[in-house]
Amino acid sequence: MQMALEHAPTRIRKIGVSSSAKSKLGKIPTNTRLVEMESEELDEFVDEGVRHGGVVAWVQKPNAPSLKDLAEHARERRGPILVLDGVTDPRNLGAILRNALWFDVPALVVPKRNTAQLTSAAVKASSGAACIVPIVQVPNLARALDALKEADIWIYAAAKKEGSSSFSKAPLNHPAALVMGDEGRGIRPNVANRADVHIHIPGDSRPEFDSLNVSVAAGILLSAFYELSAD
Amino acid sequence: MQMALEHAPTRIRKIGVSSSAKSKLGKIPTNTRLVEMESEELDEFVDEGVRHGGVVAWVQKPNAPSLKDLAEHARERRGPILVLDGVTDPRNLGAILRNALWFDVPALVVPKRNTAQLTSAAVKASSGAACIVPIVQVPNLARALDALKEADIWIYAAAKKEGSSSFSKAPLNHPAALVMGDEGRGIRPNVANRADVHIHIPGDSRPEFDSLNVSVAAGILLSAFYELSAD
Repeated sequence: MQMALEHAPTRIRKIGVSSSAKSKLGKIPTNTRLVEMESEELDEFVDEGVRHGGVVAWVQKPNAPSLKDLAEHARERRGPILVLDGVTDPRNLGAILRNALWFDVPALVVPKRNTAQLTSAAVKASSGAACIVPIVQVPNLARALDALKEADIWIYAAAKKEGSSSFSKAPLNHPAALVMGDEGRGIRPNVANRADVHIHIPGDSRPEFDSLNVSVAAGILLSAFYELSAD
Repeated sequence: MQMALEHAPTRIRKIGVSSSAKSKLGKIPTNTRLVEMESEELDEFVDEGVRHGGVVAWVQKPNAPSLKDLAEHARERRGPILVLDGVTDPRNLGAILRNALWFDVPALVVPKRNTAQLTSAAVKASSGAACIVPIVQVPNLARALDALKEADIWIYAAAKKEGSSSFSKAPLNHPAALVMGDEGRGIRPNVANRADVHIHIPGDSRPEFDSLNVSVAAGILLSAFYELSAD
């Protein structure tokens, strides 16, 4: 909520607030509709397990840039464009958005289908970053990567081990797009084959062990790209 | 469950299974008690939001080493000892255990009080790593760090920015212990002042933004320590 008030005041459509939480609510934007609701009524608008504390805001998403504009933004920002193929857990999406804001990612790119929705659980896990980092939905991820390549963006794919380079040894270039897949299935082959470089995160692989959480893996790789432009 | 069967077969005390899930259950250790339960009965043993799929195992925790033994283990392993001060969210604890297994951390060290419990939500988030990575509970974290220092372990504290070095520029040594604090409060001063080096993760700090999730921050720093001993 704080993030929305700071960065997206004109995009807050409505705030629902319980009578007991009303006094805690600070100044709200002049065009925002304020509606008093029972706490139980507010429950219906958030996912199970999400605590709303008596306040729920309806916020319009950040505007998604075109792929052409996105390629330009990537030149000006320290973080790479982050492309997600098949990340379906809203909490992982939220955690990834939080990383994306920290590491100056210009936008996420996701396929229209088979992708996590920006639910209240995702927004909560994002610590508000969902109000700032835009998400570009594309009908075809492979074609989107082709468009970014044509705009001179380097494409990196986070791969399972075979034939890929350790991220700490690989040549990381700027501007870049980093493709990450679902923890279980990884990146689809027709998306992965668009990559200029395949990178992995070295660790103690155990055949039965489910490797790293995708948001942790994203954090490690985004940090490495961000460090590129240090000093 | 798979992790427990692979790595801790003798520590599985009991398996509760619903009649419909029984056929999916593979070979179980000879000394394990198998109890048929209704799915609703199994629900009572797991946290809200954790899906058990009809199988719940009671597994004894890995044995925690003494601090003296732990200092020896740290010499043989690529990851640092991971010390958590005030991490109270079980899901964060689980995600951190998952990172710890991947990056060859010998053990976690946590205070007896004010620390996340190894609940079913934590074990689930750990992807089974909770069955392998031991957790050492100590009455006093500052004194535990003193003991590790005496055993020639380097102490690193993950700090908020002021006066700390970027982790990618700091001298990372082996064997080491890495102290991480709660996302909100950070490491308590009497614990932080035991550190030889204070490190932070550079990123786009915004005053109102809640920085990185502690499990993501742990993943980034553990990866950097793990990479130390690469070739």
